[in-house]
Amino acid sequence: MAPTPTTHIIGAGLMGASIGIGLTSEGWHVTISDADDEAQLLARSIGAGLEPGLEQPELVIVATPPGVTAQVVVDALNTWPEAVVVDVASVKAPIADVAERSGHAHRYVGSHPMAGREISGGMAAQGDLFRARPWVLCAGQASAAAVAVVTQVAEALQCDIIEMDARAHDRAVARVSHAPQAAASAVAAALAPLGVDDVALAGQGLRDVTRIAASRPEMWADIARLNRQAIVETIDHIVEELDAVRSAEDIGEAMTRLIDKGRQEVARIPGKHGGAKREWEAVTVIVPDEPGRLVELLSDAAAVGVNVEDLAIEHSPRQPVGLTTLWVLPQHAASLAVALEDGGWTVAGA
Amino acid sequence: MAPTPTTHIIGAGLMGASIGIGLTSEGWHVTISDADDEAQLLARSIGAGLEPGLEQPELVIVATPPGVTAQVVVDALNTWPEAVVVDVASVKAPIADVAERSGHAHRYVGSHPMAGREISGGMAAQGDLFRARPWVLCAGQASAAAVAVVTQVAEALQCDIIEMDARAHDRAVARVSHAPQAAASAVAAALAPLGVDDVALAGQGLRDVTRIAASRPEMWADIARLNRQAIVETIDHIVEELDAVRSAEDIGEAMTRLIDKGRQEVARIPGKHGGAKREWEAVTVIVPDEPGRLVELLSDAAAVGVNVEDLAIEHSPRQPVGLTTLWVLPQHAASLAVALEDGGWTVAGA
Repeated sequence: MAPTPTTHIIGAGLMGASIGIGLTSEGWHVTISDADDEAQLLARSIGAGLEPGLEQPELVIVATPPGVTAQVVVDALNTWPEAVVVDVASVKAPIADVAERSGHAHRYVGSHPMAGREISGGMAAQGDLFRARPWVLCAGQASAAAVAVVTQVAEALQCDIIEMDARAHDRAVARVSHAPQAAASAVAAALAPLGVDDVALAGQGLRDVTRIAASRPEMWADIARLNRQAIVETIDHIVEELDAVRSAEDIGEAMTRLIDKGRQEVARIPGKHGGAKREWEAVTVIVPDEPGRLVELLSDAAAVGVNVEDLAIEHSPRQPVGLTTLWVLPQHAASLAVALEDGGWTVAGA
Repeated sequence: MAPTPTTHIIGAGLMGASIGIGLTSEGWHVTISDADDEAQLLARSIGAGLEPGLEQPELVIVATPPGVTAQVVVDALNTWPEAVVVDVASVKAPIADVAERSGHAHRYVGSHPMAGREISGGMAAQGDLFRARPWVLCAGQASAAAVAVVTQVAEALQCDIIEMDARAHDRAVARVSHAPQAAASAVAAALAPLGVDDVALAGQGLRDVTRIAASRPEMWADIARLNRQAIVETIDHIVEELDAVRSAEDIGEAMTRLIDKGRQEVARIPGKHGGAKREWEAVTVIVPDEPGRLVELLSDAAAVGVNVEDLAIEHSPRQPVGLTTLWVLPQHAASLAVALEDGGWTVAGA
């Protein structure tokens, strides 16, 4: 094992503090600072890192808001001329460009740990926030030694390392994250003309589409500014698809064509363990809305040896029951449905 | 209790067969027919209704594909001059208009039982498909007696009856269902330029937004044609919101504004039991991907008396663990997290 680098983290929000807790608990020497005194104090008090002393960091992790990341990266490269500097912002190319112009690009590694949680702030920090999640590394002009140091971080936090070109990363996240956020928010915004009774017709489909529309807007201004071009290109693509439907001579045919296209692409979103999404089958069960009933249901499924691959709960608007859908491997669906019915459950669809 | 009407169902797909099974099991006299011999035979063999004899139906339920529903409704009104005719298509105004022109509108009631399952075909029929789900009634020019008969159906199937104007219904479903389907498919379609490694960056957000993009396209051509105007209006609204972002001088400010709008509207989508959506809190736990571990987790939650309001499972691309998020009432989140950690679970966020 390589010795762990003396590490300094700049920025004590959710990401910086979580990385700090994770590395500290792995025995790394970590210091942490934040422009906000309170955030800095909190981070140090929850074990995210110590107050910096006279030691020279060998690794500096920049975890500031994305809008100021490029500047902080360059400052860090200049302040610690021996240190490797890595940032964790969710847009990579504009920061890489600035780092490159600094003349220190061999010591800079762009990265994007994809926590995927819709929370923020140092209070929510957890050492294993990133565990088992993708951690994108954009090496750019970094030296192999610099990349190795950052790889140590990702390995210590037990992330899946994915190496990508910065521009390819930005184009990808525009399509898998940034523009979908805008689209989900736009679908939600288009509910505005509806009255309360109208909105009550919403089913699970709308709830799924608009779940991320409940996200907090804080980070999005920076992200949108930094990744403007790729976001605009993706929005244009989405709008083009929608326009083909709204302007079609035969809207029925156009809608079918769009849904067919979407089905083809959605099948490429990886499911479990990096494989192509499996074709699970749904077994839907009526579950009384009482503590413990969901456990009973899953116990009964486990008792017949069926692994539940995914699960969705749909609450009924006015009745004390919910519909729970268990997704299982196709070869298990029919036998699970029979076993559950034998066990007294009402299977509403399988 | 009013005596139950002699009932004939036209159309033995998922909806017709499910209604037939449900009413038959409640002791109603139900017959069922379908233009497709095989579907008809299947429906009769699974208890969805008998072969029609010489009896005159007092109620005719039209459960054909939406594109032919208006014509079948008019034929039924003419064939059985004493019967109440109800249809279950997911678009209501165009069918009501045709029924009105037939001169028998006092015997016609439009309805839309919202099963919300993404399945189809008589094979999947279940008598309680609609239980605890909204069943929209559009009375239009129907007599009170006709409405009462249809209300009996909804009550027998234990649905939540919601009375609405046909045009208001169509505008509402365009915004809560039809246009969101198009938007979700468009977001998925916009993944086309991405390579396999790029798509692997997808997180739970994209999976939620695009879940309904995996829907089968069969019914959508009819639906889109029948509800064209409302769908086009909604798509225009969604495109306008997206255009405000892509064309903004400051895309950051525009994105923030759109997300704020979306948050405001998404908060109006009703949650459990018809109340406004509660502010649940998420407790995210790392769960080994093995049969029975999810049950253990929920058992441990139930053991401390916490009701899990909703649940999401997020599989890790390359590791044999998944992240399971439990949504619970805010007052339970902290204590649940502590109890789970005490029980040996790794809580990745609470």
